[in-house]
Amino acid sequence: MRQFDINEDPHRRYNPLINEWVLVSPHRAKRPWQGQKEAINTVALPEYDPECYLCAGNVRANGEVNPPYESSFVFENDFAALKQEAIAFDGNAEGSFFKAQPERGISRVVCFSPRHDLTLPEMEVDGIVNIIKTWQREYTDLGNIDYINHVQIFENKGSVMGCSNPHPHGQIWAQSSLPTQVQKTQNSLKAYFDKNGTNLLQDYLNEELKVKERVVVENDHFAAIVPFWAIWPFETMIISKRHITKITDFTEDEVAAFAEVLKKLTTKYDNLFETSFPYSSGIHQAPTDGEEHPEWQFHMHFYPPLLRSASVKKFMVGYEMMGESQRDITPEKSAEMLRNLSEVHYKQK
Amino acid sequence: MRQFDINEDPHRRYNPLINEWVLVSPHRAKRPWQGQKEAINTVALPEYDPECYLCAGNVRANGEVNPPYESSFVFENDFAALKQEAIAFDGNAEGSFFKAQPERGISRVVCFSPRHDLTLPEMEVDGIVNIIKTWQREYTDLGNIDYINHVQIFENKGSVMGCSNPHPHGQIWAQSSLPTQVQKTQNSLKAYFDKNGTNLLQDYLNEELKVKERVVVENDHFAAIVPFWAIWPFETMIISKRHITKITDFTEDEVAAFAEVLKKLTTKYDNLFETSFPYSSGIHQAPTDGEEHPEWQFHMHFYPPLLRSASVKKFMVGYEMMGESQRDITPEKSAEMLRNLSEVHYKQK
Ligand SMILES: O=P(O)(O)O[C@H]1O[C@H](CO)[C@@H](O)[C@H](O)[C@H]1O
Ligand SMILES: O=P(O)(O)O[C@H]1O[C@H](CO)[C@@H](O)[C@H](O)[C@H]1O
Repeated sequence: MRQFDINEDPHRRYNPLINEWVLVSPHRAKRPWQGQKEAINTVALPEYDPECYLCAGNVRANGEVNPPYESSFVFENDFAALKQEAIAFDGNAEGSFFKAQPERGISRVVCFSPRHDLTLPEMEVDGIVNIIKTWQREYTDLGNIDYINHVQIFENKGSVMGCSNPHPHGQIWAQSSLPTQVQKTQNSLKAYFDKNGTNLLQDYLNEELKVKERVVVENDHFAAIVPFWAIWPFETMIISKRHITKITDFTEDEVAAFAEVLKKLTTKYDNLFETSFPYSSGIHQAPTDGEEHPEWQFHMHFYPPLLRSASVKKFMVGYEMMGESQRDITPEKSAEMLRNLSEVHYKQK
Repeated sequence: MRQFDINEDPHRRYNPLINEWVLVSPHRAKRPWQGQKEAINTVALPEYDPECYLCAGNVRANGEVNPPYESSFVFENDFAALKQEAIAFDGNAEGSFFKAQPERGISRVVCFSPRHDLTLPEMEVDGIVNIIKTWQREYTDLGNIDYINHVQIFENKGSVMGCSNPHPHGQIWAQSSLPTQVQKTQNSLKAYFDKNGTNLLQDYLNEELKVKERVVVENDHFAAIVPFWAIWPFETMIISKRHITKITDFTEDEVAAFAEVLKKLTTKYDNLFETSFPYSSGIHQAPTDGEEHPEWQFHMHFYPPLLRSASVKKFMVGYEMMGESQRDITPEKSAEMLRNLSEVHYKQK
């Protein structure tokens, strides 16, 4: 019987962060693709678009006028999924299958800069530093609100990721409950911390930094890696090296180092298929429930859908929805491809 | 303070099948959509396509020739994600973060009929009965293989769901391990059965049949409902009324009744936006590990992505990936819309 070869044989990998498995089929990248192709947008965007509801000075759907902002700009989402109003609730009948509870929260939009045409990789490091400081301010302000126990910072980039306006921006959804994925992560981090007295993600990162094969970008304070258990073809995670539970604990050096990693990683992403690389990204960090959370370690996920080219994505569908996530290229191979790409943006060459 | 109104106020609902929550924002369906639209394919397909690798008598990528099949036709996937070869494996180092294990399995393709142009809702009930019998045969044959402990039957319909050939077909991935979603479901079903001595999904269905508001199609043996905790806008689940753990336990009447529900449900789907409605569907039933599984109840999930029209889908992206699934229309409203639609296919009117 042949011995297991992780680079060739179908296998499952375990994700200790959320206690789930992923099916890896290294050989499957070879199959031809005859399915749907995504439209590639090659139209260069203007610096300012009079029709854009996020550009400075323009009017939004609800009639409000954006100020003439010069760095980043935050406002309340005009079509928020969450509302701030407190709602009286009597609870659910014991054992009922119809278990629901009102959820209070705040949704905000964070425009990265007045420039309609500058995505993260094309911004100067200073501009990215400015976004990080905005995230810190929002985490503090929202987290200080009594009923807000979790602040989810995220970005949907590209129309294929449901982004409805190309003006570079992210969102923040802050709410009372820990969302499902965060609760799962916290359970795992907590169980590990209680058992070992150390931090799961710090211990994991140390192992990754020894073997190096999944590291994409690294500096003194952060590393971006393709997790051993990544599900998306070019999924990455930025993890802080020091034990940091939340973004507001960054030193000035760490803010600068994080900005640098963000710029380098997203530049490599764009260079991979010479396209503005779509993804959803999001920061996971300690809840704002007033408790100490030594089990947490600051990290940021990037889930990009593209697989083979600027127009062919990975579909997480039938088997993936009913069974489990499945990938066609090993995380080691993806990391190698990303690592070997230039840190200079292809448009600037 | 206003009292909680489940039809108006943002809230979370609990899914006891997989122990996860979904965020429901009833008011959010009102927001305008300026984002990506899916291409709508309005080209009528021929009954037979000489270029199609699934049509009877045609040659596939690997050089094999399809037989002149007359009902459904099953073959081994030419680019399978799983392989049958047994692989020697020494196990993982204790406590390692790099936890992986080889996975053995078989992937098959099930062509629904020789007709290149007939999707499930457009087939006669007899043709659907025939597919169900094929699924029964495959469940038995694959399940009888020693190392196969789970048989996942599913369909990806429509290019937006990653389907790369419009010839109506489904797939079967059979493997050694219980996939993540199935394991989660089994854990919940088992815990409920151990506690109550009854079946979670049967008890749940009985509650749904009392209130009726989420029922879409019903006959003597099955009901199709929009689950109270549905995440996709028009997600449904078909559940058997009798306690049936696997598809091979169907009586002849149940086979016919299941075919009828499949036809009616998918017809309503097509009628909703007068388009061939995309979805991923999949059957969840008892594992084939040789154990009794009284905790299981046969059911089939439908996860369709469309939200507002034939071209506007729901994007499960940033918040959904980092936080939790979120929906913009209540399950009750979706069920009402589907229930009120004709059971005659719009093309046949
Ligand atoms: O096997 P197919 O139809 O080529 O591929 C499709 O279904 C598979 C199983 O859900 C997915 O892994 C693929 O991403 C999808 O494109
Ligand atoms: O808020 P947006 O950008 O309009 O909407 C986008 O992001 C949201 C949060 O991930 C999703 O719920 C929507 O489906 C998506 O289209």
